[in-house]
Amino acid sequence: MEKHDQLLMKKQNKNLVLDLIKNHSPISRMELAKVTGMSPTSITRIVNELHMQGFVRETELVTSGVGRKAALLDVCGDVLYTIGVEIDKLAIKIGIVDYIGKIVAWQQIERDETESYNETLEKINGIIRLLITEQGFSDEKIIGIGVGLPGFIDYKNGVVKISDQLKWKNVDITADLKKLTGFDVIVDNELKMKIMAEHFKGMTKDAQNAVLVGIGSGIGSAIMLNGEIYRGDSNNAGEIGHTVIDPTGNVCNCGKIGCLATYISEGAIIADSRKVKNIQTIDEVFASYRMGESWAMNLMDRATTFIALAISNILCLYNPEVIILSGNTIEKLPEIKSAIEQKCELYIWDPVKENLKFVYSLLGNEGVVLGAAIQTQNTLLDLE
Amino acid sequence: MEKHDQLLMKKQNKNLVLDLIKNHSPISRMELAKVTGMSPTSITRIVNELHMQGFVRETELVTSGVGRKAALLDVCGDVLYTIGVEIDKLAIKIGIVDYIGKIVAWQQIERDETESYNETLEKINGIIRLLITEQGFSDEKIIGIGVGLPGFIDYKNGVVKISDQLKWKNVDITADLKKLTGFDVIVDNELKMKIMAEHFKGMTKDAQNAVLVGIGSGIGSAIMLNGEIYRGDSNNAGEIGHTVIDPTGNVCNCGKIGCLATYISEGAIIADSRKVKNIQTIDEVFASYRMGESWAMNLMDRATTFIALAISNILCLYNPEVIILSGNTIEKLPEIKSAIEQKCELYIWDPVKENLKFVYSLLGNEGVVLGAAIQTQNTLLDLE
Repeated sequence: MEKHDQLLMKKQNKNLVLDLIKNHSPISRMELAKVTGMSPTSITRIVNELHMQGFVRETELVTSGVGRKAALLDVCGDVLYTIGVEIDKLAIKIGIVDYIGKIVAWQQIERDETESYNETLEKINGIIRLLITEQGFSDEKIIGIGVGLPGFIDYKNGVVKISDQLKWKNVDITADLKKLTGFDVIVDNELKMKIMAEHFKGMTKDAQNAVLVGIGSGIGSAIMLNGEIYRGDSNNAGEIGHTVIDPTGNVCNCGKIGCLATYISEGAIIADSRKVKNIQTIDEVFASYRMGESWAMNLMDRATTFIALAISNILCLYNPEVIILSGNTIEKLPEIKSAIEQKCELYIWDPVKENLKFVYSLLGNEGVVLGAAIQTQNTLLDLE
Repeated sequence: MEKHDQLLMKKQNKNLVLDLIKNHSPISRMELAKVTGMSPTSITRIVNELHMQGFVRETELVTSGVGRKAALLDVCGDVLYTIGVEIDKLAIKIGIVDYIGKIVAWQQIERDETESYNETLEKINGIIRLLITEQGFSDEKIIGIGVGLPGFIDYKNGVVKISDQLKWKNVDITADLKKLTGFDVIVDNELKMKIMAEHFKGMTKDAQNAVLVGIGSGIGSAIMLNGEIYRGDSNNAGEIGHTVIDPTGNVCNCGKIGCLATYISEGAIIADSRKVKNIQTIDEVFASYRMGESWAMNLMDRATTFIALAISNILCLYNPEVIILSGNTIEKLPEIKSAIEQKCELYIWDPVKENLKFVYSLLGNEGVVLGAAIQTQNTLLDLE
């Protein structure tokens, strides 16, 4: 074999062993050799390297009956950290996350709808500095920042092409935030970040294919196939918000008629509410719903119909093992879950319902931040 | 490296070299070494093996300016053959296909809607025997049969779970056809077979992700991601026919209300036609359309609306590089293409339209047979 291939294979083997320890710890060297098919000598060499680099430690000693005791291996959470950032219309959330996905520091602040792009970045930099200082970390411990936000993102070039919610267009957030913070930065759509968290420690851990649906100020979905985000040709895969549900229906701000988002996004629900009552926020709509006001009941009844339709259509097209429902609407108004489920029971085609796991996200508030931090590890950590 | 790994790698390298020759012929040994990173000695050894097994031959000699001339390599089409079979409601098509995807023998016969499962299989066996005899092939040259048909297929176990068009339910077609013919048999949904042909020599040859939409007696789609069919959890991915388009609309035979198929499948169009005129076949509907009869114009206008909606929704969810339209409706009534395109122009969300290649299948009549034969190669050819 060529020298170059040998080096590549060596690196791949090392990453494979580290992944196995990370996902199956505690695990013995013998098990690692068995699973990988590598020789015990190779495993010992790789584990020693990982130990010296601080990734791996020995935990307890176990005995397999005869012979000397074997040490079990575990990864060290504190070997490195990444920072996850969620930017939403009205909130910024930031967390420092360790190598095993534990959030060790957290800060959430309000965001003013009118604040400029630069103001938002300055705020983020300020909080990151504060959190790092509080934790007493040196910058070397932190390998980068991951940002998740609603909108259409050119993740390869690190540019936000358009975010209606944040009113940003063609901003080079990775370059700008790197200039401010000094750290490498990646950016992606919030739901794509969130499904990374579901995959790493949430609802889809063992699934080959899964869809995460987000219903709130924006309407979208993220798709995970074989442990990787499926993006489509231009990173728009999963854009259910702009599927046309009724060609004779509502006008959408994208210029089309009958997009799903025009029936179930917070903005659409608020706009329709104003035809009846002087409503400012989605919380007021939900309060009216809870008071049993018929207009709010009607609006949310229509919304649950269209949410169930969206789920039905995604399931027909992707036939996933798991579908996860998440987002503000579900979190703030959990009462509508049973209506959604009842309508799904009617609308979902039997063959794609059979083995389906239909669940709600349990990551709540932290999902995007955690996913962004995990994706930063995946993207920026290049183990030699 | 372990002995077992070495053998596996050797096999992988051999398949890689054969694939490269197949897809980039004529190609020189030197180019193969360059592309694969393998040593010239390894390449020579592998090519010699492939030559001895009959897969590869030398074609012309070329000179690169200095030194002795280098021979270019090509694959031998006649090294082996597979048989592709398409079973449709009213037709059976069978082709013998060589290693480079050329149909060397072809037979198409009518199928009676009332004929039994066994009668259909007997017919298929008869034609296969006839074609093999005509070609003067020995059975050893043929490595297997691939069958494509409309319906929900358990491709892993080779069982047709349900085919509404053929009125089959839980038939073990791979076992039954193997018993009759003596050949190994694989089976899959017709559109999944067809997209294999598009990938091998059709519209999606260089695409990373592509969707094939079929509109005819059934309504469905097949999805290819990274050169492989994406199936979902239970092989139902791409089932647009049962996406709900209008929850207050038509009743579907699946028990739901408003499925896409109830607006655009041949059966649905015929049923609606009968409310106006005594219509028996889809050809009569299309004839009325060509005569300018308003009811037929209306029905097909509604159909093009829903076809465009289906395309719009698939594009939002899969964001593919290429979408291919195919099926009886498009082939028999090509006049509606411009209406579909105009409506797609309105309905498709701009971001997924940007780099999209929107095309019609050019494989026509032969697509499913060719794809089934190619998939049989892919599945059954195990090069040692």
